[in-house]
Amino acid sequence: MVPDPIDRLRRQLAFLVEVDRLKLVLRRVPVMDASRLENSAEHSWHLAVAALVMADHAGPEVDVNRVLRMVVVHDLVEIDAGDTFAYDTAANVGRVEREILAAERLFGILPAAEGEELRALWDEFEAGATATARFAIALDRLLPLLVNDRANGGSWREHGVSRSQVLARMRPIEGAIPAFWPLVLEIVERNCERGHIKVEAL
Amino acid sequence: MVPDPIDRLRRQLAFLVEVDRLKLVLRRVPVMDASRLENSAEHSWHLAVAALVMADHAGPEVDVNRVLRMVVVHDLVEIDAGDTFAYDTAANVGRVEREILAAERLFGILPAAEGEELRALWDEFEAGATATARFAIALDRLLPLLVNDRANGGSWREHGVSRSQVLARMRPIEGAIPAFWPLVLEIVERNCERGHIKVEAL
Repeated sequence: MVPDPIDRLRRQLAFLVEVDRLKLVLRRVPVMDASRLENSAEHSWHLAVAALVMADHAGPEVDVNRVLRMVVVHDLVEIDAGDTFAYDTAANVGRVEREILAAERLFGILPAAEGEELRALWDEFEAGATATARFAIALDRLLPLLVNDRANGGSWREHGVSRSQVLARMRPIEGAIPAFWPLVLEIVERNCERGHIKVEAL
Repeated sequence: MVPDPIDRLRRQLAFLVEVDRLKLVLRRVPVMDASRLENSAEHSWHLAVAALVMADHAGPEVDVNRVLRMVVVHDLVEIDAGDTFAYDTAANVGRVEREILAAERLFGILPAAEGEELRALWDEFEAGATATARFAIALDRLLPLLVNDRANGGSWREHGVSRSQVLARMRPIEGAIPAFWPLVLEIVERNCERGHIKVEAL
């Protein structure tokens, strides 16, 4: 059966209306002037800019157009599942199950072709098994680092995050974009010295 | 002379820090729950989602990957030039000159290759002379229509915008995505009946 074109269009528009709600999902990370918390929609945009300007750091096996598509949709499930703070172990229990339910509902609003395409992008990002996904994940780790560094410690200081936690969180950058790693270490050390990241006793 | 890779990286990161400010540029259009005004960063993300889910309405001469890149950067100049309300004729005087100065400063932060690439995307969007740019522009007109329709009249009602102004603003949709046009007319008429768009005397 050929899908009704008007029904297709109405489903696409219903999806665009629904995803507007991502603008209301707040992250723990502030915007850089520290005036308010960042929302997941503007964060996703910031990542898309990062994918554009950092493309030269991607290896030949990374599909940069697909990175761009991936970062645009990577946080959509938070509309239902909320933003889960990376450093909050308890909040992360059940996160995967909540997000899968969200993906089923949200991508199900779309016509089948678009729904399956966006779901595949999200699944690939979550699995992190391709070079393309690993590059997108590395950018997603890098931006909060830049933001917290500028915003007076941001979520690190607010939530007492430790050096080993930050380094574990940033680790995907080392593999996906090795050129960034010395800079990551430099930023982490600077923020330890400032007291914005907790330094554990040895 | 081969560019210094560390200098390249620092310029890319400086640009990512600078563009964070687009999250602080407010538009006249609200978010759909009408709780606050939308900012240009989250609007740009919303457009990127639209480019993904509406791709099947693009003609064969439209490069959808380029549409995606274009919408991500299309409002960056507002960091310096501010968001100019489309229906405010006085505010639009000097807009082009202000935005060109902004483009020179902002894209000049990047290494030459990335700076030129992003500038070319913005120039193409502004000129609207390619099928790719016209599709991006049509999406940029469509989203405020959807948002204002949901948000109780939004910027139309707030600023007393008339039916002929809205139709003139929406006209690029008719050429670039003809399948949308009946729906645009339906939404405009509905908002005229609700009193959210001013109806001029005949």
